[in-house]
Amino acid sequence: MTAGGAASAIGGTAAVVRRPGGRSARIRAQVLEAVRELLVEQGFDALSVDAVAERAAVHRTTVYRRWRDVGGLLADVLDAAGDDGWQPPDTGTLEGDLTAVNGEVEVGLTGEPVTAALIAASFRSTQAAEALRRFWDERYERCAVVVERALARGEVPEGTCARRVVVAATAPVYQQVLLLRGGADPTLARQAAAGVALAASQGLFVVGEGPG
Amino acid sequence: MTAGGAASAIGGTAAVVRRPGGRSARIRAQVLEAVRELLVEQGFDALSVDAVAERAAVHRTTVYRRWRDVGGLLADVLDAAGDDGWQPPDTGTLEGDLTAVNGEVEVGLTGEPVTAALIAASFRSTQAAEALRRFWDERYERCAVVVERALARGEVPEGTCARRVVVAATAPVYQQVLLLRGGADPTLARQAAAGVALAASQGLFVVGEGPG
Repeated sequence: MTAGGAASAIGGTAAVVRRPGGRSARIRAQVLEAVRELLVEQGFDALSVDAVAERAAVHRTTVYRRWRDVGGLLADVLDAAGDDGWQPPDTGTLEGDLTAVNGEVEVGLTGEPVTAALIAASFRSTQAAEALRRFWDERYERCAVVVERALARGEVPEGTCARRVVVAATAPVYQQVLLLRGGADPTLARQAAAGVALAASQGLFVVGEGPG
Repeated sequence: MTAGGAASAIGGTAAVVRRPGGRSARIRAQVLEAVRELLVEQGFDALSVDAVAERAAVHRTTVYRRWRDVGGLLADVLDAAGDDGWQPPDTGTLEGDLTAVNGEVEVGLTGEPVTAALIAASFRSTQAAEALRRFWDERYERCAVVVERALARGEVPEGTCARRVVVAATAPVYQQVLLLRGGADPTLARQAAAGVALAASQGLFVVGEGPG
């Protein structure tokens, strides 16, 4: 299942799957799947171009030529994950949308081991870290629509920073699952989303505003 | 500087410093300082009992006997960091307290390289991950007082979950600095704190409540 929560679906294979045909696309699909499998099964230290080539049953010079090294492989896994058709849910309210996004993020982080493994790998490889940041930036941009819809409905004031709204709503789920390693906490996910929706409706995420 | 933000001060040396005298305390201080230095300068991969012993100018059998391995060394660095007198600021309002905590977390994460390095190391060592979790749990418990004071002032209703309030308020700072590697964003830190304070005042962090 390719749950596509903001920043959660980095295990998704949609990108490679939906490009039909082509030997090149097939090789890419095999190689990226091998990277994901090895990362989950054996961790970052076991990743090498040779190990990936062997697992993918692809000639190693092909892998070296196209991806160069482990950083290149990880970056492409992340780029491929972002290359899907995911859109945030449209529930009719900002609170509903952010709550639904948080639910997807939580499912992605707890249910797809490759997600946490890729984020862990971002601490080992600069290329992976940059690709992860690109992935998240792009997801935050897609999520901006939930704030734009809220603005159109008059739920939040002009000038509300969509990115900060989405980061503030989703961050507690990452903290709980990824950094605290505390497992899913659906109450936290829901309360954090509702809290940010309320705060945004009161103008607390207007750019240049804010207390203090 | 030993900035003691919730979960930020993991570079602090207060614990070892304030135990006066004693050869054992002195050795511990030297060894833990060596771990922090090596971690920042050369990263996790360069850490070994031998390298730490050499840097600390302590006999390696002493280090092996007391800390056993790199995991034991990292865990003790984290345990020592938590063993300080840090208390959350008391500004008179929940919003002020959470904003001040977020400021300290941001300073800790951006200003003390060992903090981010220890969090990165938690993805390499189970013992470090467990110690980091202990450290955070203990900081969250100390921060509970900001919610208790808010309750006493009538700012938040009975049943408000202090831990979730603190996690929700601080998580965006970790997301921004550590996972997005986006550097400090004081506006986000302030808005997230103010948003959670407002949401808590409206009862959104009451246990068993919450929308959805």
